[in-house]
Amino acid sequence: MGPGPANADPRILAAQSLPLLGHMHPPFLKIMDEVQQGLRYLFQTDSKYTLCASGTGHAGMEMAIANLLEPGETIVVGNNGIWGTRVCDMAGRFGAKVVNLQTEAGKSFSLAELTAAVEQHKPAVLFLCQGESSTGVHQSLAGVGEMCRKNGTLLLVDTVCSLGGVPMYADAWGVDAIYSGSQKCLSAPPGGAPLMLNDRALQKVQNRKTKVRSYYLDLHLVGDYWGWYGSRSYHHTGMVSMWYALREALAIVAEEGLDAMWARHEAVHKQMWDGLRSMGLEPFVEDPNDRLVTVNTIKARAGCYGAGRCVPAGVDWAALCKNAMDKYNVEIAGGLGPTAGKIWRVGLMGYNAKPANVELVLAAFRDGLQQQNYLKA
Amino acid sequence: MGPGPANADPRILAAQSLPLLGHMHPPFLKIMDEVQQGLRYLFQTDSKYTLCASGTGHAGMEMAIANLLEPGETIVVGNNGIWGTRVCDMAGRFGAKVVNLQTEAGKSFSLAELTAAVEQHKPAVLFLCQGESSTGVHQSLAGVGEMCRKNGTLLLVDTVCSLGGVPMYADAWGVDAIYSGSQKCLSAPPGGAPLMLNDRALQKVQNRKTKVRSYYLDLHLVGDYWGWYGSRSYHHTGMVSMWYALREALAIVAEEGLDAMWARHEAVHKQMWDGLRSMGLEPFVEDPNDRLVTVNTIKARAGCYGAGRCVPAGVDWAALCKNAMDKYNVEIAGGLGPTAGKIWRVGLMGYNAKPANVELVLAAFRDGLQQQNYLKA
Repeated sequence: MGPGPANADPRILAAQSLPLLGHMHPPFLKIMDEVQQGLRYLFQTDSKYTLCASGTGHAGMEMAIANLLEPGETIVVGNNGIWGTRVCDMAGRFGAKVVNLQTEAGKSFSLAELTAAVEQHKPAVLFLCQGESSTGVHQSLAGVGEMCRKNGTLLLVDTVCSLGGVPMYADAWGVDAIYSGSQKCLSAPPGGAPLMLNDRALQKVQNRKTKVRSYYLDLHLVGDYWGWYGSRSYHHTGMVSMWYALREALAIVAEEGLDAMWARHEAVHKQMWDGLRSMGLEPFVEDPNDRLVTVNTIKARAGCYGAGRCVPAGVDWAALCKNAMDKYNVEIAGGLGPTAGKIWRVGLMGYNAKPANVELVLAAFRDGLQQQNYLKA
Repeated sequence: MGPGPANADPRILAAQSLPLLGHMHPPFLKIMDEVQQGLRYLFQTDSKYTLCASGTGHAGMEMAIANLLEPGETIVVGNNGIWGTRVCDMAGRFGAKVVNLQTEAGKSFSLAELTAAVEQHKPAVLFLCQGESSTGVHQSLAGVGEMCRKNGTLLLVDTVCSLGGVPMYADAWGVDAIYSGSQKCLSAPPGGAPLMLNDRALQKVQNRKTKVRSYYLDLHLVGDYWGWYGSRSYHHTGMVSMWYALREALAIVAEEGLDAMWARHEAVHKQMWDGLRSMGLEPFVEDPNDRLVTVNTIKARAGCYGAGRCVPAGVDWAALCKNAMDKYNVEIAGGLGPTAGKIWRVGLMGYNAKPANVELVLAAFRDGLQQQNYLKA
């Protein structure tokens, strides 16, 4: 119940135990086709250009950055946690001009702030993180795609810990490129990074003047292996078991349906906060509209030290996590990056997002807080 | 029975169906430690600096190239097939000066040739491919490590389709850096790339003047996640199921023992060639010392078209492969890169390297050649 990897669905683990097919054999190419079809539904896009990068979410991030930017081009990075910081690092390594649009941990960006930055810098790419797992912030994308289009900017969105848990309408919202991870709301093991480009983004990749610096993550070549241009060329050996897992994960998404899946994540989030509030705990994220349902960040109502954004004063957050693991076999995580030592984080993602798990988390919190005399036993 | 992925050992597939652990949880870190320990045995090294890149063999290749070379530095690439060509491409993308030391498909490099090239160019890195799967050539490493050391050059070796199938003594042979793949002689699914550096290579990585262009494959950061420097930092989410698979694969290697494993690969290679020769087929690789036992490349004894390096005249190689798949459910592959259309390729690797599989391959060849009237029924 940490910020991921979430537990994998047993159906997905079973799919991983199937015998290997060859990475260029027709039955396996059909599985790749089906993964792409499932991704189109998941991203809510009609774009042909979906695939999975052969690596974890960071590989998806690097694939997007390496391919959408040429050396010397500008990226504006909406940075409100660890993922924006990583994108700044990566884009710098690939020779881009990085504009770090930083805001306080726990806040999202308004359309006005984003518009001002894009109009000022006219970047090739605007990066936003839909679900910032280090702070529990959900970034609204309303109006951002249209604004980017007006400014000749591509909109790139990180959905590693949000995709499948909260609404995403890539086409309707004008999101040009998205990457995600397999191990969060998709309930598969870490190892595959779903990615999509729309026509605008693909055009950018195809019209590059410089070679992509990474061969392994060269989207044009990897896309060709995934059949983007009608035929198939060998680029690298596809991750056979991992694509079995993703195919199963996407089948499970389709069986439940996205609307139901989003509603389920919303419902367990509400259930958990009803319980946490009754113990005197509060969301780290102040604006209710900014709260991410998939990764929940928790501070105390009162008695806080520091800037008012911390776990309860006098409560040892790490001891509570350790007790949860030792006694309840449940993971509750501490903060990360800007929130390290200040909050707890609870993931409600995919297979794990069910009422019984919420009760277990609440029991672990209650017990941990009682042990430390923050709650009366 | 193609050049890979080989069939996975069922024990390894079963390991992949185990529940996920967290990528930073102590029991999982212990599994990572055990993977490293298994890799030390497999590479025959005492170096602390082993890990698996979170990607396929190409990720291992790119990790080595991206980290061992700085822009402007020289790499001499021993290029006798597709892998040398790819290394040239990759090294160029990362800004290195590439010396393409090309030789004919089907041949390896002599120590004298390599020495001349290294003494002339004084490269930062010499790249060799121990097992060139596109041509079936085994590259001897005798004396190469010592020669590189004398010239201040790091020796980087691709062992994707050779590691576990043929001898490798990293320390004794003075090999500074090695990468491999999970899906060949290790009998695991594709997705993990075993890699090692010795102290010399690590020193090069640590003394870089420029940042590695790839964040995802930054060896210093990934090594820190794998515990190279005593502690552990989060870099990316480790591929939990894949590391289970590799741990099991390395346990299987240790149970059999490397000497026995190498002898088994040698024995099935001999068994197969006794059968193939009896049908009038011959090795594509002329020098017996250059023949790779793990990926076998096959041409006809007589009646060849072209330069004498081809499948039997009048025999449709693809039809034979199709018949093998349709009737025997066995993969026999055609050529790749410089050998496309000229040869067949049969992999004898890991779990697949057993006498019964050789008999099946021979039966498929016999039937295919009889159908095309190359052999009398």
